[in-house]
Amino acid sequence: MPKGVSASDIGELFRPRSIAIVGVPRGFKAGKVFLLGLLDQGFSGPLYPVHPEASEIDGIRAYRSLDAVPGDVDMVIVLVPRDAVPDVMEQCARKRVKFVVLYTSGYREAEGGEGAEEEGRLCEYARRGGFRILGPNCMGIYCPETGLAFFPGMPKRSGHVAVLSQSGSLSSLLTNACVRRGIFFSKVVSYGNGADLDLPELLDYLYKDPSTGLVCAYCEGIRDGRALVRVLREGAGSKPLIFWKVGVTPEGRQAAASHTGSLCGSARLWDAAFRQYGVCPVEDIEECIDRIVAFSHFDRTGEGRWGRVAVISGPGGPAVSAADAAGRCGLALAELTEATRAALKRILPRFGTSVRNPIDVGLAASFSLGHYLDTLEAVAQDPTVDIVLMLGSAASEEMNREYIDGMIRVRSAYGKPLIAIAYPGFLEDEGLLRSLWDASIPVYPTPERALSSYAAVVRYRRLWSARPGSMAKERRSR
Amino acid sequence: MPKGVSASDIGELFRPRSIAIVGVPRGFKAGKVFLLGLLDQGFSGPLYPVHPEASEIDGIRAYRSLDAVPGDVDMVIVLVPRDAVPDVMEQCARKRVKFVVLYTSGYREAEGGEGAEEEGRLCEYARRGGFRILGPNCMGIYCPETGLAFFPGMPKRSGHVAVLSQSGSLSSLLTNACVRRGIFFSKVVSYGNGADLDLPELLDYLYKDPSTGLVCAYCEGIRDGRALVRVLREGAGSKPLIFWKVGVTPEGRQAAASHTGSLCGSARLWDAAFRQYGVCPVEDIEECIDRIVAFSHFDRTGEGRWGRVAVISGPGGPAVSAADAAGRCGLALAELTEATRAALKRILPRFGTSVRNPIDVGLAASFSLGHYLDTLEAVAQDPTVDIVLMLGSAASEEMNREYIDGMIRVRSAYGKPLIAIAYPGFLEDEGLLRSLWDASIPVYPTPERALSSYAAVVRYRRLWSARPGSMAKERRSR
Repeated sequence: MPKGVSASDIGELFRPRSIAIVGVPRGFKAGKVFLLGLLDQGFSGPLYPVHPEASEIDGIRAYRSLDAVPGDVDMVIVLVPRDAVPDVMEQCARKRVKFVVLYTSGYREAEGGEGAEEEGRLCEYARRGGFRILGPNCMGIYCPETGLAFFPGMPKRSGHVAVLSQSGSLSSLLTNACVRRGIFFSKVVSYGNGADLDLPELLDYLYKDPSTGLVCAYCEGIRDGRALVRVLREGAGSKPLIFWKVGVTPEGRQAAASHTGSLCGSARLWDAAFRQYGVCPVEDIEECIDRIVAFSHFDRTGEGRWGRVAVISGPGGPAVSAADAAGRCGLALAELTEATRAALKRILPRFGTSVRNPIDVGLAASFSLGHYLDTLEAVAQDPTVDIVLMLGSAASEEMNREYIDGMIRVRSAYGKPLIAIAYPGFLEDEGLLRSLWDASIPVYPTPERALSSYAAVVRYRRLWSARPGSMAKERRSR
Repeated sequence: MPKGVSASDIGELFRPRSIAIVGVPRGFKAGKVFLLGLLDQGFSGPLYPVHPEASEIDGIRAYRSLDAVPGDVDMVIVLVPRDAVPDVMEQCARKRVKFVVLYTSGYREAEGGEGAEEEGRLCEYARRGGFRILGPNCMGIYCPETGLAFFPGMPKRSGHVAVLSQSGSLSSLLTNACVRRGIFFSKVVSYGNGADLDLPELLDYLYKDPSTGLVCAYCEGIRDGRALVRVLREGAGSKPLIFWKVGVTPEGRQAAASHTGSLCGSARLWDAAFRQYGVCPVEDIEECIDRIVAFSHFDRTGEGRWGRVAVISGPGGPAVSAADAAGRCGLALAELTEATRAALKRILPRFGTSVRNPIDVGLAASFSLGHYLDTLEAVAQDPTVDIVLMLGSAASEEMNREYIDGMIRVRSAYGKPLIAIAYPGFLEDEGLLRSLWDASIPVYPTPERALSSYAAVVRYRRLWSARPGSMAKERRSR
């Protein structure tokens, strides 16, 4: 691994003062997204498109080579074909750049052995030239704080979630999916094959990064397993790490080799490390988004007790299934105080309902919203309840608005964490969902997905609050 | 169990010649849905609202009591409070009705013992009166062929899926969710507490019902486990049975007792029965819908070989994760013939792609749709491929239309089963998704959900084609 840039200097990867893009196409082609992304994000430093013929691209002065660029260049994004890469690398060395983001593919992931050899040579260039390489086969950096993006249309607002992904597509898909849920990002890194800058070093940086509160990683394989274990050990408990490890089956391992040339390693070893260091593993994009939502919302709201769930449901079947989900996830259904039960008996009809948790408010609640909302208000004040899961909808669109407004009112009045379930066929209006997210009420499609995500947060909190001296504890006591 | 109506007569439950609704409300209240449902569905026989005071409800002549109704009444839907039920039951006996659908709740599921006693008495009324009871605590029957429905707006088109559900809400939620996916129903039965007509008898009927090709059950508990095992044994292999058993945890069991008064039984015994009789178990509504989609689409299209999957993906990370999903589900990734690989090498750029399955068509495919569609065309003709999973999207809405049209063209030209993945952020336009469903291309949100559903169909087919003499085999060889 090249040592030109020390671990602490990796932060500079996220704040280049100037960027050159070598090989940016003139037409509407895939490579154009890098230039469009930086323009859209309003990168404030000098931006130098490099093209062998064009003197101007999309209204920006272009240069024939990196050598021809007038000022200093901190970061070079390289899109040229593989055969042209060595020459660009030489230019990067002459230009004394700090970071190369290498989009070009055809390295370790390509069929035949020559790609792997070429990839080895990349690190040589980096070492000799005193720069670090992100990639190859990657999209690079999205960091709204410093105006970096690899697609146009990525949000300009910063948040506390960081993503490290070997897959460029996933880094942008995850970002878009979260933004719709009111979740924003500190730093997103698509690092492809990880030939030089690899997961351990990047994760180490993000564990220490004060603007990151939660890290999510998509990983096919790593070169240095010991380094990762060291980073996991040191970072454990400082912030949650959601980890999507693929290549856990023979089929997946083969696919990973063709995608980023990764050696996936034994699934059992990964699992053991995840358990030991309190990492939250996920297996697909839905689970990944679900967990990001849970750690973003619940880990920041509930400073009190954890894990005792109240379920309020209009439909009875889903209430039973929610109770099973709580049981499966190791969550307790809140007992409810005598006072709450007495209140519920006053609010709800005697038959077709249940004042035991899960609370079944009955079919008539869709027509008489008080059954839902008065129940919610009573339960939100119950000290045996840590979080309320609300599964319902109303008989008309106007009444749905009223139902949602009621939830928002109770959420704000009592500060009790609340989850809204948009069950298939319930609460489909985007605007209504939007106002729930805005009011810090996360929305899940099923109680099963909500509760398994909440349970992951509870497990994390219990693990780290039970270990005195953990960074988590220090952080909470500040 | 009352014996007034024999097993074969249960079919009459779905074709009453006349219906009375006792206790239908005048205003916009929950109970009104029964009348509105039948009117909306166009029930063709006489419809008699019964109300103690109204002489007319929603423009329909109403009667003061069942005794006052002029003609014969085959089915009575009862919505009166529990205390008024005995009198209505006496009237039903005098009127010689065949079936009572008892919406009224407050029986075995209610707190305290008196509800259970009352429920026992219901069966006495039925036996003495020579009628059968569906419920209590149920919504009744949806059967578009005979104009029965318990909600307005349920589709008028018939299909081949039957649902048996203890939860009334779920029976309508499942129906609505499936209809959006182009899946329609033969018969849906919400049977509540199942005091008289219970799962075994209803399932037995549906196993033999020629207009039903697939049964989906939501069940909290049953009274007669031996009867269910007998029905499962006799019906096994005749048609797929998707089974959502809840009450499998202590939390769920408690909730089920408050919902339908069910005794859930040991989760292990249920699992064992499911394995032995080839039942497909599901754990939540998403999985339930996913499996209905798979059995509806794949079980009817693929008459050839099963289980060899080709994955075509633009984003590389999801392709790797799809390969893992295939491995986890026990599905094989198709080998692809030499001819197909050679064709793919001609179609796809050399780098940033993979011609091995999962086939990574590269980021540029969103801009050059031929990479997606020519690849699909080559793979659809490959005899080593039983099903193709297509995970992609295009760079603009117009190109997405072209991408979808291309899939529909290939599906129709080669008859190869095809799944479209609408990954988070991909293919969100409802109209585009609609045209996929219409072209028999099911849409799943992730490869994981698509493949685990397809794998359930493959397991079912392998189980029953390996047992000579099974009804499945007889049916297929017709």
